[in-house]
Amino acid sequence: MSEINAADLTARLIRCPSVTPKDEGALDTLQDLLSEAGFDCTRVNRGDVGNLFARWGPKGHVRTFGFNGHTDVVPIGDAGAWTADPFGAEVREGIMYGRGATDMKSGVAAFAAAAVDMVQNSPPGGSIILTITGDEEGDAIDGTTALLDYMDRKGEKMSVCLVGEPTCPNEMGDMMKIGRRGSMTAYFTFTGVQGHSAYPHRAKNPLPAMARLMDQLSSHVLDEGTAHFDASTLAVVTMDTGNPATNVIPAECRATVNIRFNDEHTGAGLTGWMQGMVDQVASDLEIRISMEVKISGESFITPPGPLSDLVASAVTAETGRTPELSTSGGTSDARFVQHHCPVVEFGLVGKTMHQVDENVPVAQIHQLKSIYGRILRDYFT
Amino acid sequence: MSEINAADLTARLIRCPSVTPKDEGALDTLQDLLSEAGFDCTRVNRGDVGNLFARWGPKGHVRTFGFNGHTDVVPIGDAGAWTADPFGAEVREGIMYGRGATDMKSGVAAFAAAAVDMVQNSPPGGSIILTITGDEEGDAIDGTTALLDYMDRKGEKMSVCLVGEPTCPNEMGDMMKIGRRGSMTAYFTFTGVQGHSAYPHRAKNPLPAMARLMDQLSSHVLDEGTAHFDASTLAVVTMDTGNPATNVIPAECRATVNIRFNDEHTGAGLTGWMQGMVDQVASDLEIRISMEVKISGESFITPPGPLSDLVASAVTAETGRTPELSTSGGTSDARFVQHHCPVVEFGLVGKTMHQVDENVPVAQIHQLKSIYGRILRDYFT
Repeated sequence: MSEINAADLTARLIRCPSVTPKDEGALDTLQDLLSEAGFDCTRVNRGDVGNLFARWGPKGHVRTFGFNGHTDVVPIGDAGAWTADPFGAEVREGIMYGRGATDMKSGVAAFAAAAVDMVQNSPPGGSIILTITGDEEGDAIDGTTALLDYMDRKGEKMSVCLVGEPTCPNEMGDMMKIGRRGSMTAYFTFTGVQGHSAYPHRAKNPLPAMARLMDQLSSHVLDEGTAHFDASTLAVVTMDTGNPATNVIPAECRATVNIRFNDEHTGAGLTGWMQGMVDQVASDLEIRISMEVKISGESFITPPGPLSDLVASAVTAETGRTPELSTSGGTSDARFVQHHCPVVEFGLVGKTMHQVDENVPVAQIHQLKSIYGRILRDYFT
Repeated sequence: MSEINAADLTARLIRCPSVTPKDEGALDTLQDLLSEAGFDCTRVNRGDVGNLFARWGPKGHVRTFGFNGHTDVVPIGDAGAWTADPFGAEVREGIMYGRGATDMKSGVAAFAAAAVDMVQNSPPGGSIILTITGDEEGDAIDGTTALLDYMDRKGEKMSVCLVGEPTCPNEMGDMMKIGRRGSMTAYFTFTGVQGHSAYPHRAKNPLPAMARLMDQLSSHVLDEGTAHFDASTLAVVTMDTGNPATNVIPAECRATVNIRFNDEHTGAGLTGWMQGMVDQVASDLEIRISMEVKISGESFITPPGPLSDLVASAVTAETGRTPELSTSGGTSDARFVQHHCPVVEFGLVGKTMHQVDENVPVAQIHQLKSIYGRILRDYFT
């Protein structure tokens, strides 16, 4: 039978202006294609977000290959700065332009095309599941988590999962992700008693407490890195008072700290560690210090093993490159999937993601489909 | 001969709305009175400021009693909040209201009245000099310094000087000033390299340098106080960044420190000390730190001795109180006079200075004149 053109499918998806939480026909485009190829499709909507669950093959098969991706995109930013229609999928000299070209309509299209080709031309001895969300770029609370909740309720299970985010920093195939660092932000408010600079003993200056705490936090070495992770990092990102008067001791000041942490830590553990420092400084300097913590995601890893070997060898076969097994970068929906099954991430070169004139070489879409197709064949062999 | 009514003279001065640098007839009022009593009067104007030099008795006499005061006042602030005309000198139940009632038209009037009474009724065996400025509340660069420059040029000399600022915190006679702490402000700018919070090793975060330096400066004990001074104090008054993005390491931040220092330090010495700390932190954390220092005034003291004894015993004789010999508070024009001759400060209760409804009990003006008169008599006896 004929094969699906992944570049054409990418173009059709780009032409749906699906800026989170809008869908604008993107999920319908995929659902139509997958349904026709024999996938069971279910829309798992939550809030104002649409999500698509699609399975080919029997439910609960022990060899169920899963894929996770998203069809929503970030806003186009400065419209006047684009040299192409952000939702036009125009191709110039072999390069396709448009919001989502790399992040990640091409990834979704490449996998969908590879999966449809497989089930139509050489049906595998197992099942394939696609979980496609419309809420990855936004709050991500009604997206992949909604799909995983649905799967739990229905007894649906992926044996392994590949997330199709762009992972290659420079060349096709140079990196895949086997985990991510955790990320958290702590907001501190220091409260003392206002007074005159000439009589500091009658005031309680909160600034020395802020200086002491930020010095202690920033000079602490969290760790030296672990087997698969870089060292955890702590960055003081702002310290503010806003006091214009040199003869006034202010009553309040604020600081914010961002931590990227590896598998040696948890958000709760780091919160406890910081609270201990806070309590000590507050007691030593007699200043009230409040701390509010927002944990964006815990660190996670799928240690090198069968799944990473499967993906890496397919990448090498198609590109000639051996992908680095990395845990660098920000966060992705793999942080949700990791609670469900082993998960790794591989996609194309992400250089232009979130930028004006986001674009992808058409040949790279085809190459990505080839890699995904080989991963599927190798998995079911 | 008749005596001058110091309260009436205060009222006449209050009715001149002499908000710095305006004069509105205040100096003329004094000059007319003093000239008539035989004082040689010279207007020493500089810039847009008027100043009055007045001497009774021979120039260069070894016993020349000096007085320093100002006729300018701070703005009235919220006009609607006053219950009396700020420039009306209204008396209600023995209290005179108006801007300058305590700071320090009453002090100028009380001394001028006492001095005129003396030269008219029992001329002293020496000279009396009044240096009255219209620029104490402003920048103070065209005021007392202009008068002292004039005196240097003309070979005029005060043997001792009394500054008539309000010095009593609670009750008439409870405090005099024999010196003042110095005051300086240091402005720090910390410059690094902007970057992403997830990759702090690619950035140079200036915030830890600010935290380290401010912690070190604020936790350092400058001294434990000296014979006549409280301990020097250092207050971090503001630390600012203004970075709203938790995923961005900022390139720059700023801090300001205010120091009030006693006679164990100089502005230059403290600047050198801070520069040493700056260099160490800048080197340790590889951050560029610039420091700009503004010295408002050095510390100074006229140690307890004949002049403070003279003033204190007159205060005790008239009020029954033994004034504390203090070096507390902000700064005054005594910081200029101290380069010229021994100087102390005594005046009435300053509670309402710079406030809405500034006021003075009429009886306190008369009492202050009595004290100043006794100081003059005792000095020339």
